[in-house]
This record gives sequence, C-alpha cells and structure tokens, in this order.
Amino acid sequence: MIVVLKPDATEADIAHIQQQVVHWGLQTHLSRGAQRTILGIIGPEDLLREKPLAAFPGVESVMPILKPYRLASFEFRQAGSVVTFAAPGGAVEIGGKRVTVIAGPCSVETREQILGIARSVKNSGASLLRGGAFKPRTSPYSFQGLGLEGLDLLAETRRETGLPVVTELIDTRDLAHIEKYADMIQIGARNMQNYSLLKEVGKSRKPVLLKRGMSATIKDFLMSAEYILSEGNFNVVLCERGIRTFETMTRNTLDLNAVPVLKRETHLPVIVDPSHGIGLRDFVSPMALAAVAAGADGVMIEVHNAPESALSDGEQSLRLQEFEALMSRLRGVAEAIGRSV
Amino acid sequence: MIVVLKPDATEADIAHIQQQVVHWGLQTHLSRGAQRTILGIIGPEDLLREKPLAAFPGVESVMPILKPYRLASFEFRQAGSVVTFAAPGGAVEIGGKRVTVIAGPCSVETREQILGIARSVKNSGASLLRGGAFKPRTSPYSFQGLGLEGLDLLAETRRETGLPVVTELIDTRDLAHIEKYADMIQIGARNMQNYSLLKEVGKSRKPVLLKRGMSATIKDFLMSAEYILSEGNFNVVLCERGIRTFETMTRNTLDLNAVPVLKRETHLPVIVDPSHGIGLRDFVSPMALAAVAAGADGVMIEVHNAPESALSDGEQSLRLQEFEALMSRLRGVAEAIGRSV
Amino acid sequence: MIVVLKPDATEADIAHIQQQVVHWGLQTHLSRGAQRTILGIIGPEDLLREKPLAAFPGVESVMPILKPYRLASFEFRQAGSVVTFAAPGGAVEIGGKRVTVIAGPCSVETREQILGIARSVKNSGASLLRGGAFKPRTSPYSFQGLGLEGLDLLAETRRETGLPVVTELIDTRDLAHIEKYADMIQIGARNMQNYSLLKEVGKSRKPVLLKRGMSATIKDFLMSAEYILSEGNFNVVLCERGIRTFETMTRNTLDLNAVPVLKRETHLPVIVDPSHGIGLRDFVSPMALAAVAAGADGVMIEVHNAPESALSDGEQSLRLQEFEALMSRLRGVAEAIGRSV
Amino acid sequence: MIVVLKPDATEADIAHIQQQVVHWGLQTHLSRGAQRTILGIIGPEDLLREKPLAAFPGVESVMPILKPYRLASFEFRQAGSVVTFAAPGGAVEIGGKRVTVIAGPCSVETREQILGIARSVKNSGASLLRGGAFKPRTSPYSFQGLGLEGLDLLAETRRETGLPVVTELIDTRDLAHIEKYADMIQIGARNMQNYSLLKEVGKSRKPVLLKRGMSATIKDFLMSAEYILSEGNFNVVLCERGIRTFETMTRNTLDLNAVPVLKRETHLPVIVDPSHGIGLRDFVSPMALAAVAAGADGVMIEVHNAPESALSDGEQSLRLQEFEALMSRLRGVAEAIGRSV
Repeated sequence: MIVVLKPDATEADIAHIQQQVVHWGLQTHLSRGAQRTILGIIGPEDLLREKPLAAFPGVESVMPILKPYRLASFEFRQAGSVVTFAAPGGAVEIGGKRVTVIAGPCSVETREQILGIARSVKNSGASLLRGGAFKPRTSPYSFQGLGLEGLDLLAETRRETGLPVVTELIDTRDLAHIEKYADMIQIGARNMQNYSLLKEVGKSRKPVLLKRGMSATIKDFLMSAEYILSEGNFNVVLCERGIRTFETMTRNTLDLNAVPVLKRETHLPVIVDPSHGIGLRDFVSPMALAAVAAGADGVMIEVHNAPESALSDGEQSLRLQEFEALMSRLRGVAEAIGRSV
Repeated sequence: MIVVLKPDATEADIAHIQQQVVHWGLQTHLSRGAQRTILGIIGPEDLLREKPLAAFPGVESVMPILKPYRLASFEFRQAGSVVTFAAPGGAVEIGGKRVTVIAGPCSVETREQILGIARSVKNSGASLLRGGAFKPRTSPYSFQGLGLEGLDLLAETRRETGLPVVTELIDTRDLAHIEKYADMIQIGARNMQNYSLLKEVGKSRKPVLLKRGMSATIKDFLMSAEYILSEGNFNVVLCERGIRTFETMTRNTLDLNAVPVLKRETHLPVIVDPSHGIGLRDFVSPMALAAVAAGADGVMIEVHNAPESALSDGEQSLRLQEFEALMSRLRGVAEAIGRSV
Repeated sequence: MIVVLKPDATEADIAHIQQQVVHWGLQTHLSRGAQRTILGIIGPEDLLREKPLAAFPGVESVMPILKPYRLASFEFRQAGSVVTFAAPGGAVEIGGKRVTVIAGPCSVETREQILGIARSVKNSGASLLRGGAFKPRTSPYSFQGLGLEGLDLLAETRRETGLPVVTELIDTRDLAHIEKYADMIQIGARNMQNYSLLKEVGKSRKPVLLKRGMSATIKDFLMSAEYILSEGNFNVVLCERGIRTFETMTRNTLDLNAVPVLKRETHLPVIVDPSHGIGLRDFVSPMALAAVAAGADGVMIEVHNAPESALSDGEQSLRLQEFEALMSRLRGVAEAIGRSV
Repeated sequence: MIVVLKPDATEADIAHIQQQVVHWGLQTHLSRGAQRTILGIIGPEDLLREKPLAAFPGVESVMPILKPYRLASFEFRQAGSVVTFAAPGGAVEIGGKRVTVIAGPCSVETREQILGIARSVKNSGASLLRGGAFKPRTSPYSFQGLGLEGLDLLAETRRETGLPVVTELIDTRDLAHIEKYADMIQIGARNMQNYSLLKEVGKSRKPVLLKRGMSATIKDFLMSAEYILSEGNFNVVLCERGIRTFETMTRNTLDLNAVPVLKRETHLPVIVDPSHGIGLRDFVSPMALAAVAAGADGVMIEVHNAPESALSDGEQSLRLQEFEALMSRLRGVAEAIGRSV
C-alpha cells in the first residue's frame, strides 16, 4: 500500500500514521520527494485494506499495490482452470480448447416448448441447455417463471435429451431444489452482489455460472467470484452479459473488452451471453462470433421455437434455424483462432 | 402502445400484427403517413408490455405510452405520501414539511460506539438512528457486521435513547429478526433488484427504506418500489445514494437530479444519502445541503465517533461535531425553501 | 411525431397545440384513450423537431417517429456504400467485401521511424498508413505533433512506399495543408462535435474518417456524419474507437455493438480502432479479430517499431512482428465469415 | 511515479527500466516486498508522464503521484481566484463572496427578444447576459445562430442595458469578432477538448467560461483549463453543465459533486448551468438552488420571454417571471450558507 501525503501534512500527521501502522503489526517506509512525501506500507495488504487510511489527517490518497482478489486471480493458479462436470451425455468441460455453447429459451414455458427447443439445439451442437424456472423480472406484473413446475420440466427434458441443464437461483431458500435438478447454477446479473446468495452457492459443490452485474467493474465481478471461491467452491464460470452505458439503441452494451482482460486477470473460464448483451435478435449472431474471436471459452444463446409467443425475451431469441446457422459460422471462427466448437 | 412499422413492412406483416393484437383482446388503429405507417394499440398496456411486439416481422420500434409503474406513480395518489410510524420518542413522519435526518455509523461495532453516537446525533437533532448489523461488503474478507449481536445492541440503544432504528436486511431468511428489532427496514443498493427480498418486505408492514441501485434508472428504481407496493406495503421511502459514472475522484456520483424528477413521478417520499453518494467526508456536508435545497424529504448521514477506527466506511463518516455543525446549516437551508429540520 | 398529453391537460391546452401545429402548416390527428390522449402530427418531421413542443402546457412527452439523420441513413441508399479513392498503389476501397487494414504509428516522429514502419506494415498487408502530424493531447505539456514537418515526412513516405495516408485535422485553418498531403482526412473523437470542422471537411471532396466521440450515442455519431454529408461530401467512413464507461482497467470500452447496429442504420462503411478502443497492447489483437467477426469493414491499428520510445501511445502500439502475426489471424477470421483481408 | 512490477518480472527487466530512467535524468528507488517489487521514480513527473513506462516488459502498472494539472491546481495559488473584469455597469467579480447569476436566452433571435429578456433579467438581479450567436447544434438542419448579426444585437443590448455579455466561440477564425463584442468568451461542452480553440483563447486576455464536456472527468476538465492557463490567460471560470449517464428521464445528469471537488482541486471559480444540466424547465430551479447550496460561485440560467417560440432550448428555458421567483429563493439559500446573490 502506498500512502501519498498532502503537501501540507505535518510531521505530527506522519508520525500518527506511522504509529498506527506499526500498532497494526506492519512496517512503514518513508520517502520524501521534492513535491510529495510518500509512505510505503509493507505487510499483508488485506489487513490494510480494512483500515480507513484515507480518513487520517494529512493523507492525500491511498494506492493499493495488490489486487483485492486472491483465489480468483490468475496468479493463484498460474494457468487457466477447466470447470468439468459429469452429465448424462458425458462429461462437460468449460475452459478447455473447445468453445462451449449453451442454448435454450429464456424461460421454461411448457413441456412441448422446452423439449422441442432442447432437441433442436442439441442437434445443432449445443452442449448445455439453459432455461429459467425462477425469473427475476423488472416488473412485478411480468411472468415470474413456472417455479418448481419449471424445474420438473427441465428434469424431464434432461432425461429425454441427455443435455445437462443450467438454471437460475434467485433466493437462498430455493438452493436445495435447484441443486437437485440443475447441473449448473446460474447467478443472474441483478444478484451478482447478493452476497447471501453467493455464500450459499459457495457452500454447494455444483458448478456456478456467475453473470456480471450491469454496472460491475471487472474488479467487482472478480470480487463476487471470490465470495464463492472463498467458501470452497472453485467450479465457477464467469459470464459477460452486457453493461449499462448511455447507449439506448441496444438493450445493454456487450463488453467484449472484458474477455481478454478477464483471461489475463483470472484463471476462471469466461463465457459471453450476447442475447442479453445486445438484446436484439438481428445483432446476436455477429456478437456471438465476435465473442469467440475475442477469446471467450463459450457463448450462451437464447433460442426459442416461436419468439413471437415467448413469455419473456422474445425480442432477443434466435429462431431454431437461425441458431443452427450461427453454429456453423461459430465453427469457422473458432477454427480460425485454433479452437473448436 | 405505438408500433412503428419498417418502411418495407408488407401488408401481410401488418395484417399479421393486427390479427394477433385482436386475438389478445385489444384494438388497433392504423395510420399511414408519407414515410412510416403507424399502428396505435388501444387497451390495457400492462398486457401488451408482456408481448414481444418488437419480435414481429415488419416492426421498426415499439413505443409505450404509459409508465410501467402504477401504484408508485404520482398519478395514483395525486399528492405526496407521508410515511408515518410510531416510535419510542413519538411518531416519525417522512415526506411532510419537516426534513427528516437519519444519522449513525455504517456498522454497529460495540455497545459504547453505538450508544455514544446515538446520544450525540440525537442531541444534534437526528430523528432516526442508522446502523448496520448485516453488511453487504464487496470483499468476502471485509467485516460483515455483528449480525444478531448487532441487532441486540441496536435494541438496547433504542431503549436507552428513544431513537427509532433503521437497519439493513440482506437475506429473506433474516426478515423475522429484523422486523422484531427495527422501526424501518433498509434494502441496500446492491439488493435493489433482489426481487425475492422485495416481495418479502412487501408482505411486511414495516416501513421500508429502498436505496437506488448503482446503475438503476429512475424507472428501474420505481419498478422496484412497485414490487413492494404490489404486495401491499405502501410504507416505502426512496433513497438516492449515488450512481456509477465514469468519474473516479468520488466514490459514486450522487444524482440530485433524481430528487425533483422523483417528486414529480411518484407520491413516495425521497431522501438522499450523501455519505455513500460522494463517499468522501469533506464533501458530505455540501452535498447534504444541496439535497435539501433540491427538495429532498430527508438526508441520511454516516456519523462516527472515531472514523479512523471505524470497521467500515471511515472515509466518509462525519465526526460528531461535524455532524452538529451540519445540522445547524441544514436548518438554514431548509428555512430558506420554506421547510424545517 | 407523437405528442402524449398529461392526464390533466385541458381542452384549451389541446386546442392551443393543435392551432400552433396547423399554423406551422402541419396536420394533427387526435386519439383519446382511457388513460391518455395522444396527438399524432403528420407532415415533415424535420420542421417539427425544431419546435419546442415539450414546452407547451399539457404535454407529457414527445416521441419522434423518424430518425433525425437522412443522408446518412441506410434507407437513403438502400445498400452499403463503398468509399473509393485513387492512391499511388492503386484504388483503395473501403466497405466492399475486403476488410481494409490501416496501420501505422500514433504520431509521425522521425523520417526513419515513419518510413520503417510504413515499409513493414505494407509488407504485412496494410492498405493505408496512419500517422498524426497534428496531435490533440489531453495535456498541453505533451508532444503535440511535428505539424507541417510531419506532413512532409508523410508525403515522402507515401512516395517511397506507395501507401496512401490518413492523418488528422484539428483546426479549420489547416485544411488546405492536410488536403494537399493526405489521401484521407481523420476527424478525431474529441472533435466529433466540432461542427465548424465538420462543415469544412464536408466542403472538401477528400474521404473523411470520422471517429466516434467518447460519449457519443450512435445517433449523435450519425448526426455528425450527416453534417459532412449535408455539405456534399459523401466519402465518409465511420470509426468506432471506444466509449467512456465506468470501467478503469482499460483505457476506453471498445463498443463492438456499434458495428452491427451501424451496418443496419447507415450505408456508410464502418471500421474499428481497437488500439485506442481498449488501449493496452496485449488486448489489441483479440479485439481486432472480434471487430472483423462482428462485421467491421476494416480495422485501424497502431504499430510502432519501438513502442518504448514512442512519443505518444506507446502502451497501445503493436510491435512490427506482432502486427504481422495479427494480419495472418485476421485473414483466417475474415475467411470464416466470407470476407478477405 | 510508482512502477509496480509483475510477479514474474526478471532482473533483466528491472535493470532495463532502471537504465532507461537514469538515461532520462531521473533516479530510481527499488523496494522488494514479499509479493511485489516496486520501483519509485524520483524527479519531474511531467517528463515521466510522456514516457510509455507501461509498455516496458515486466511492468504491471504505473501510478502517478502528482496531479497532471499545475497552473490550475489549488496548490498553485493556495487560495481561490476571483475573476474580475470591467463592464459598463461596473466591475464584475466571479469567485468572491457574492454568487454571480448569468441569465438570458439560448440563442439571440431578434432585437426585441434579446433586449426584452436582458431588461427583465437585469431587473431581477442578473449580473451577466448570456446569448448565443454561433450555435453548435447536434443537427445540421437546426437553427445555427444569427452569426455576426447576433453579435451586433448583443452589442446593442449591452449598450442599452449596461449588462456585460458572455457568448460562445466555436471556430478559431471567429475569435477576433467575439473578442470585440463579448465581455466573456464561452467555450462550449462539445469543444472542451478542441485544443486549437483552447490555445487561441489562452492567447486572448478576455475572461473565458469553460464548460465541462459531457464525458469529461474532473481531471480532463482541469487539463482543458490548463491549456488556457498555460498560454497565459488566467481569467478562467469553470462551468459544470451536466454529464452523460445512463439516465434518460433528464437531458443530462447535472453533476453537483463536481462543485465541492473542484473547489478543493483548483483555485478557479466554479459555476453551474442547471438549464443544460437537467434540461427540463420544471427542474431547473431546484437544481439552481442545490448548486448554490453545494458551494457554486454562480449559476447560469436560460431565460426566454416565450419559450414556446424559442428557436432553441425552449424546453429548458425559464419564463421571465419564473426567473424572478428563482432569484428570490436563490438569495435565501445563499444567505443560509453565508453568501449573497
């Protein structure tokens, strides 16, 4: 930690800070420049981070040296992690050479809908099925998902098709249910900083798909992953899904910059959800291709058999044949950068 | 709802949309201009909002006419609401002529700390005591609050000082505890779209202090209030506490624009938290004065007896005497605009 | 234009608006719904856009139907434009099937530097050379470019290598110089709304590379292009180069969403500058690949022979061999989506 | 400057950086911690800022210690500056105890309009008249101002009323005209980083009203002021006028946080333009009151005798009597914080 002192900081101010720091069991190193005096603090930065050093008289600014995430950092593993889990149709790996494709509707609506979509996306080459049973909706008057009935339909679809299932958890009280039915638990963007929920899935051993919050910096995103890891669950996959900016022509601004930055900052696999990210069907495919070109370990695509009748997110869902066309182009781009789909 | 058709929309496209709309039980009104054909849809807009009209072939854009919030809208009440609740020292009113001041530490830390601060802010004129027992922290390694022990200390402080208490709820499973101890339940910024939590406090009858999420538009903010109201709890107070922008010199960007806009859009009282909003002690007082000048019904200020030793948010906490000085200036500004503190 | 009236708008308010609109030579169409009365206004929307309809008593909101850009709109041409210009080594086309690569240093520094870089990037396959002689720098104490001397060096390099040159114009008074030396004139992000400059290059017939402003919406961006087109110069190429968001780990947030959106909204070619967009060398190549996968008509890459000694933007410049490696991967991705480099 | 090295930086990397730094004439100070090695660089930071240290192998991050603005910094003067200029009705001072009120229409439209408004706002207590002759408009089809004719009308109004005049400069070629007619030159938000324009007004000795760009950080804003100061013109007044955020209910987000932050960072006076800042008439007055409460040295208010017929910004202009009412409330708030209007 580097503490920059104000030009008018007194000797008493400096001595006071040094005393405190020593009292906390750390060492200081003072360096007086022509324009500013600087205090380097040596010792565990986690401890220091908790101290309100900026609140001390005479302090101009405090600059941490280390990243606040440890278990999630690339340094911790020195290599990319591959999240692996058993599934009816064979083990699924996210983060390896192969680009993982997750597809399915926003919400589970009916038996026919989810089964039909699952069969189709499996044929097109998807490895996981997405489908929400508990839906976080901006309006209390919107469809909130089928709940437990939706989980049952997912279980049946999983049995019928062999596709493993990822579905969203929105309440700590539902974890036991979701754990029983899902192969992978999704934490949605609006709950990225719902720390009670993060701690609970951290105690689970199910793989977790953690979506980036709408205004989460990459640092915030990794700190939320750190919550899960620090409880012992290392099966975490990060998902970029669009941030909030001033642009209004798209639903969100898909931030593909996050892909290469995350690949450097963390060992966790990184996938991209262009459906929510840009939010308009016509633009989903180009953004999915771009995500793979940028180095994403996977994409998650909303697909619906009848977008016009969808109970949620119809505007951004690909039709079955559009998804199939996308898959073939994804294969081309993946190969061009030395991966496969 | 106004549907604007693409210039190349076919007659079949138009007929298809009209058929569907009639099938949903609504009426359409077609208007052909020189450059665009427009379809007005007449009937309950809530129903329509759920339909993915933008996903229909030939549609260029869809423009809602009505606001998506109903119970929270100013129109619903045609006057400002005053949230009132009994408290040991007499009824508290938020939203009336008097500007309400809520003060206290970020977290409850010790008996001496919370009692000392409570006595001091009460003497200076605060009407409610804030203090967190369950703390949502960005890092899993940060102090997470005293939990139930913190609630006990708040209860004792309430008995000793007569100050009513507002404290944060972060997990649906803790509601019963918080309801027992708190006069007002805070929903924090990170949980503004934790809809499970909103529904639960909606079923409670305790007053709720709902903080604006970091990237929540004013519309999103009111939709979250609508969740609580739609469950039957109308005792909701909104709190602006800073949004996320590109600026890095302050912790957040306190958005005082939200004050007059919310006063027009909703009947719910609006208060401002400049401590989190700007996040640096030296700037809290000017922003508190500005909040009152802008028309806020109250301010919420972090105050600590020893900011340097605070376990959280020491950088943005006023010292006891700074808070006292602020109160006297707040009185002046409130009087200048015809209110009192 | 759709005018939505407030629920408490009086008949007199409505009549007043109708009178004014008729007085402006337009027609109105009134539609009374259960909750809102709506006034459709029929006639040239450009005329109406200038009228402060929202300032009229009784008006709740005003919703334009048409896009404010006309000459820049896709509708205007109904097909993508190809910007073509003669150059020493043969005609250059931007916007066709081939993806155009522009490369070179941020600033022209010395004869050896610009010549060396130009020869190298030409060998690697670049079609245009970039290099700034007049540099807009955030600090007045930073290197401001070589000015006219820089233009001379560009002219020499152009003669020697046959590479056409794009360079930035920052002052209306320099246009004649730049026109003489450059094949394409760049308008930088900070000058995207410098309307005097836009009008001047609109009167020129040189191709213009217009960069998106840091906080320009896509609509703003197209309105700036409209300024140039409305003066008669249709040789405009748009360049996405990163927007300002809350993220601090990268210099800007390259907004690849803009690529497919612009390809739908306008007939003008769209290129991407990942060097400024993400601002850190290690991330430039993945973002360049993503840009092409997203459908960009070209990329503009900063390349330097010795980034450590660069007088500007060394942090984001590729080394010569890194650029060569990127070119080969760009070819692969372009082929995967049916284009070439 | 603090250089943090990557955990895997080699001794050769470190030696290479040290050599270069010494070669630039500066000194280094190496500090090896358990987790990171840090290199402190001692000597003029301006020189270092120009060097692409982050481009060196082995560097993780580079952290400047000093602010990049010098002449604009509070430290430079150690006290607030008062910008003073002679005017027909006596000297005007901005930055003193008195809060300065600038009022007038967005654009000069006719002789009657500008004269009528000027007389009225003078009677209400305004100290300066605003009015644009050259207008930067988002659309090329919008009213662009009366140009030289507008300047003539401003001159006549100045003579008739004694009110000094502030008007906008948008092109370096117009400076001589504007200098002749205006008491104060406005640089608009869109030109905040038009460095050619900044250098030109820096060579002038007229007071400059510099508006903050829509996505300018406070640091960017001060760097633009530094451009003017570094050319010798210290008569600079800063104007906060709203930044671009995700909120769409208001035209911009007026950032009052900038007021106390700027008062600490710079000696230059700071005023606020709530008319552009929030952009809707009903909200201008509360935001003006809040600006003064937050510590602004002045406010700039758009006032029009007939907003419905205004050729620009009618939606955000106060009517004459609304402005008069605001003035009386401004006096109250100013007094409450120990200032006057």
